[in-house]
Amino acid sequence: MTERTLISQLSERADGPVTVQGWVDKVRDQKKVQFVVLRDESGALQLVNPRSEDREEISTTIAGLAQGTMLTVSGELKHDERVKLGGLEVKIAELKVESEAIAETPIADDSSIDKRLDWRFLDLRTPRNNLMFRVQTTFAHAMRCYWIENGFVEIFTPKLMASASETKAELFKVDYFEQTAYLAQSPQFFKQMAQSAGFGRVFEIGPVFRADPSFTSRHATEFTGVDSEMSWIDSHEDVMKMQEELLVAGLTAVKEAHGEEIKELFDVDVVVPSLPFPRIPLLEAREIVEARGHKIERGDLDLDPEGERQIAAHVKEQYGHEFVFLTDYPASIRPFYHMRHEDDASLTKSYDLIWNGVEISTGAQREHRVDVIEEQAREKGMDVEELGFYLDFFRYGAPPHGGFGMGLARMLMLMLHQPNLREVTFLFRGPNRLTP
Amino acid sequence: MTERTLISQLSERADGPVTVQGWVDKVRDQKKVQFVVLRDESGALQLVNPRSEDREEISTTIAGLAQGTMLTVSGELKHDERVKLGGLEVKIAELKVESEAIAETPIADDSSIDKRLDWRFLDLRTPRNNLMFRVQTTFAHAMRCYWIENGFVEIFTPKLMASASETKAELFKVDYFEQTAYLAQSPQFFKQMAQSAGFGRVFEIGPVFRADPSFTSRHATEFTGVDSEMSWIDSHEDVMKMQEELLVAGLTAVKEAHGEEIKELFDVDVVVPSLPFPRIPLLEAREIVEARGHKIERGDLDLDPEGERQIAAHVKEQYGHEFVFLTDYPASIRPFYHMRHEDDASLTKSYDLIWNGVEISTGAQREHRVDVIEEQAREKGMDVEELGFYLDFFRYGAPPHGGFGMGLARMLMLMLHQPNLREVTFLFRGPNRLTP
Repeated sequence: MTERTLISQLSERADGPVTVQGWVDKVRDQKKVQFVVLRDESGALQLVNPRSEDREEISTTIAGLAQGTMLTVSGELKHDERVKLGGLEVKIAELKVESEAIAETPIADDSSIDKRLDWRFLDLRTPRNNLMFRVQTTFAHAMRCYWIENGFVEIFTPKLMASASETKAELFKVDYFEQTAYLAQSPQFFKQMAQSAGFGRVFEIGPVFRADPSFTSRHATEFTGVDSEMSWIDSHEDVMKMQEELLVAGLTAVKEAHGEEIKELFDVDVVVPSLPFPRIPLLEAREIVEARGHKIERGDLDLDPEGERQIAAHVKEQYGHEFVFLTDYPASIRPFYHMRHEDDASLTKSYDLIWNGVEISTGAQREHRVDVIEEQAREKGMDVEELGFYLDFFRYGAPPHGGFGMGLARMLMLMLHQPNLREVTFLFRGPNRLTP
Repeated sequence: MTERTLISQLSERADGPVTVQGWVDKVRDQKKVQFVVLRDESGALQLVNPRSEDREEISTTIAGLAQGTMLTVSGELKHDERVKLGGLEVKIAELKVESEAIAETPIADDSSIDKRLDWRFLDLRTPRNNLMFRVQTTFAHAMRCYWIENGFVEIFTPKLMASASETKAELFKVDYFEQTAYLAQSPQFFKQMAQSAGFGRVFEIGPVFRADPSFTSRHATEFTGVDSEMSWIDSHEDVMKMQEELLVAGLTAVKEAHGEEIKELFDVDVVVPSLPFPRIPLLEAREIVEARGHKIERGDLDLDPEGERQIAAHVKEQYGHEFVFLTDYPASIRPFYHMRHEDDASLTKSYDLIWNGVEISTGAQREHRVDVIEEQAREKGMDVEELGFYLDFFRYGAPPHGGFGMGLARMLMLMLHQPNLREVTFLFRGPNRLTP
């Protein structure tokens, strides 16, 4: 392999010959000297070419360089405080065009988000977008490391199913030989299956699919789900404890690896939250929100989006915390498989996690007693027969267990204070976006 | 959370009170004493209950325990060399049935693989299957750690696409609102897009889908793909170098964490391969195979399955190595996007990786010059128009790059000497298997 130096590593190198590889960001073609800003996955660098007769060929090449053109450049590295861009430059000795770019770039800084998504691979070349996916990498890896250190098993659950995993609405249908298959809306059934299978504790980060026709900033038809489930818990409290530790592990890693760069490019201070996160029962949260003067506009007992923002504001004022667990959701607004409280069957052992005013996760202890599951399903008006193999999971012994699901892009959106999922998804999928 | 001790941790604990949780594996109900073998995700333990009048209640419960019943047991741990199972036992003080199991278990040790897959959650309770997915966890994590340490970015590519990513055959169709979508057959296009996007080096472990109606031991309609792609390579040699280091990292971690247990339960010695892996040009490999007396039965220049076994046998004899890279495949049997050799356009800069006689991976340098890609596509009889946005990736500057794709379950199958993918997939999907 060519002895390449990443641009980010140049500052640590002594003056002397180096080879760098990347794409042309800008060309300043002056009478006596030419400057090229070269960018790679790690940063940007000023290349310099003093015009002179013996450098005619290089000068001509540079004069014709379009933005995006991929170059291999060898030259002399020189540290020089006067250079604004990182205090160093490379004087070009050899320059090879690896791949030319069309001169007219289809997107500009002020292009609409839709136009930018059409040309996502160009849009992703910006330093902010590049950083975004490095942050996601660090975050996901730190979560997996937390799980591995705590004895969790990684599962890769199937995305093709013979029936719905959550609701019958929002299901994508697949032609499957002579049958119809459906795309998994979550790994819910399968991570519960792993509990009956004696896996103990499991996790998965993988795609989930929702045929949701809405166009809000928070919805996508395909997104990356972060799921975990654990056996032998006493209540949802154990799940919350795991999830808050997990998030602290992820955010600590992000702050350490990228905190300064995030501050520079996004003007955001990554805050590692303190443990434990505040917990407020949902019904109490509703009272707090109403006492703050917001009338919750919903037909059920849940919070509305403004209510989520209000409770977050309350928690921020009261506890100085960005996160809050809203606990003990009424059974009426929870799925049939959430466990109820022993002393109040109208409430579930469940929670939502709110970060900076937006819901990022739902967790619960699951009901593992098959007769109770059946009763709760019937109570919801479901046909117990249709639950099929799911109920079998609980007929041959099932440990008490619980877990949560969380959207990875939603986390990234809130972490970097971005306005919508489109900006923080590698390739967004919505009702009218299937390309590139 | 209940102060639970994993069974595997009991050997390090001093005699005294403990709480364990798991499921009933066996009950031996004798006149004077009862034994229960309890199993959890980490191992198996003997529980003992001396029958006496004051222990009547416990005795009655034990007498009625069905296999699989989930228990929480508190009692006195006692190290005792005479106990075959791990040299320790727990004398029951309290026993709580968390969840009863139906007495008749639907599968037995001699059940057919299909029957076992119908009841996969019970099948997965066996120590071998439990170990299998712990091995997979360790292996996948070690690969990701290798990538992270080497500056790779994790990508989560969409599985819903507007067109085919590989061939038009074996595509699953999805009803997508008013359109038709297809399930990704690989992240090929998108990991290449990440190269043009300036990500440098990327990886993904995620599901891929093939509407392949065949029923062989090596095929599935959905499986977990291990994919990586890197920029600024000189040739496929750089890709092979990365992949062999990656596999050494994975196998080293597996051997360290599970080597002894794998030996015990699978009678397999995990071998950490030496670097570099042997490399043999495919055409040379064909000659070696034919010289060994095997007539290759194919209409093209590839090896047949027996040929793969023969070349593996040759490499084992010659180099004592389980792996071999077969390199420089003829262009006639490679996709249009593989780069050709400068000095021989009939050969590609590509390879297959063979492990113990089975192909586990294909890698290549990709063609990044758009005019050459178009020419190669036309040569394959493809309609260049249909490649759509894929070609755009190379019109605005694209670095030289290459990568590979590999099947995770196939790796596990070969690592643990298993006969087919069904045994090593958490939940197998084939033409007539969509459940559970």
